[in-house]
Amino acid sequence: MGFGMIATWRMALEGVTCASEMLKNGLKSDECIEKAISMVEDYPFYKSVGYGGLPNENCEVELDSAFMDGNTLAIGAVAGIKNFKNPVSIARKLSEDRFNIFLVGAGAEKFAHENGFERKNMLTERAKKTWKNRLEEIKAKNLSPYDGHDTVGMVCLDKYKNMTTATSTSGLFMKKRGRVGDSPISGSGFYVDSKIGGACATGLGEDIMKGCLSYEVVRLMGEGIQPQQAVEKVISEFSKKLIERRKKAGAISIVCMNHKGEWGVGTNVEFSFVVATEREDAKVYVANQQGDKTTYEEATKEWMDAYEERIKRPIE
Amino acid sequence: MGFGMIATWRMALEGVTCASEMLKNGLKSDECIEKAISMVEDYPFYKSVGYGGLPNENCEVELDSAFMDGNTLAIGAVAGIKNFKNPVSIARKLSEDRFNIFLVGAGAEKFAHENGFERKNMLTERAKKTWKNRLEEIKAKNLSPYDGHDTVGMVCLDKYKNMTTATSTSGLFMKKRGRVGDSPISGSGFYVDSKIGGACATGLGEDIMKGCLSYEVVRLMGEGIQPQQAVEKVISEFSKKLIERRKKAGAISIVCMNHKGEWGVGTNVEFSFVVATEREDAKVYVANQQGDKTTYEEATKEWMDAYEERIKRPIE
Repeated sequence: MGFGMIATWRMALEGVTCASEMLKNGLKSDECIEKAISMVEDYPFYKSVGYGGLPNENCEVELDSAFMDGNTLAIGAVAGIKNFKNPVSIARKLSEDRFNIFLVGAGAEKFAHENGFERKNMLTERAKKTWKNRLEEIKAKNLSPYDGHDTVGMVCLDKYKNMTTATSTSGLFMKKRGRVGDSPISGSGFYVDSKIGGACATGLGEDIMKGCLSYEVVRLMGEGIQPQQAVEKVISEFSKKLIERRKKAGAISIVCMNHKGEWGVGTNVEFSFVVATEREDAKVYVANQQGDKTTYEEATKEWMDAYEERIKRPIE
Repeated sequence: MGFGMIATWRMALEGVTCASEMLKNGLKSDECIEKAISMVEDYPFYKSVGYGGLPNENCEVELDSAFMDGNTLAIGAVAGIKNFKNPVSIARKLSEDRFNIFLVGAGAEKFAHENGFERKNMLTERAKKTWKNRLEEIKAKNLSPYDGHDTVGMVCLDKYKNMTTATSTSGLFMKKRGRVGDSPISGSGFYVDSKIGGACATGLGEDIMKGCLSYEVVRLMGEGIQPQQAVEKVISEFSKKLIERRKKAGAISIVCMNHKGEWGVGTNVEFSFVVATEREDAKVYVANQQGDKTTYEEATKEWMDAYEERIKRPIE
């Protein structure tokens, strides 16, 4: 039996690389995905997840995260949590319970504290500078403040056919205090059933939750539709529906993998993602919308270098 | 064109009665449902919604609510909000925005305050006594603390074919601080599409969100399945899946109505609900599970009297 992992955005690369080694060595899906997501949370230059994540309107880093086990359908999630190092670990811990599996704000912090999770000031100097600059830019150019909503989301299949999914994000840059997107919302930001497969989303959470898109992708895979077809169908039909009903469709990207390790990606914007399977090492792809389809190719060295330069560029 | 409204639990009766008069007079779905839900929130003897709702482990009344417009798929939601009179009105207000439509905890309170919503101490003497008694009972009998999770949820169709859904709850009695159930979660606690129909759920939120059950009921109605069949199928299949995967299935009840005003109810426990249509005035029914089916009959006078007596019974 093979293993596999698919994840949103370039930022997932190091985590997926590490986790795919663990999967190869026979470790289980839940442990591997927690490790992979926490590596993204820990890296200061990924500005939309964990440490170094961009703050809300009040310059507070409020984090959302979820974990789901595809065998038991157990879910754990936190939203609007501040000053804890690894939200994904708190979400995983919550998934062990039958009651109180989704905690928000001060309550989530109380739980994390009582369960010994590590506290950390998640606001970096770099994030603070970015926030200040953005504030000035908004004023000067009279812009809508909201920008950037790159959730790391992963779906993981281990050698024993266990599947999990997890997400983590600092949410919309400049969001209002307490704003929650799709990332901790079952069926919208993530869904997994080990007998079928899993999916997770990134983009404008407010639009994603209008369609329960991760659930819908998994459901279609459960009807025997191939992952790539399932996810393209969901993205293209729902983007059209949003335009028909609301005149506008926000950015939506979804990755998915079925219980055989076959995977798919759908997007209505330019979108990078990472895949590792038994047959291929972790690799970054860049996807684009092409009519009702999504095309993708491996990221070039130039693309990878430009990314590296961009995320580390000094900020005045 | 007819109008119609279906709602969870006996407590919805007065609100649905009032709203169905408004619908008859040509008022719109969004206004009518907000009025109906806020009447339930305002009534002190309904102990699981709004004023008089049962508190969390810290004796705080934390409220969750959502509103969805079936034309635009616009959603607004709040969770873990304290000391505001009508959470449903805050949720409806949030649904007007494109960003920041789901706010939790202190952030939700900040938004409500800034938008002039009425503050109110939502903890009644009666709720405090119930909380104290329960605390002693838990200690004495070594019980699991969690009990009671009756969300009011409604689906509303007006004469102009506009549909809405809304929910409101104080959540699980004795819940941990910050716990969020299915009620403010799109697809789990509620979903509506005016071209198809709407559904909303009550019961153990932690289990409901494992299956995105309201979305699934609406989806089946969209495939042309009759509301009653759709909701029975979802309840019976998902209850079985929970038992297969987790050995236990929590209480789940769902009401639904399609765009023609045809309605359905499914439950795996005893469950009361309220329906009003153009052809019949608001009426309370009591539903029960019968194998894979749900049967229901109009509540008897004895049932109604016993309910009235129970909710107002003096508490020592």
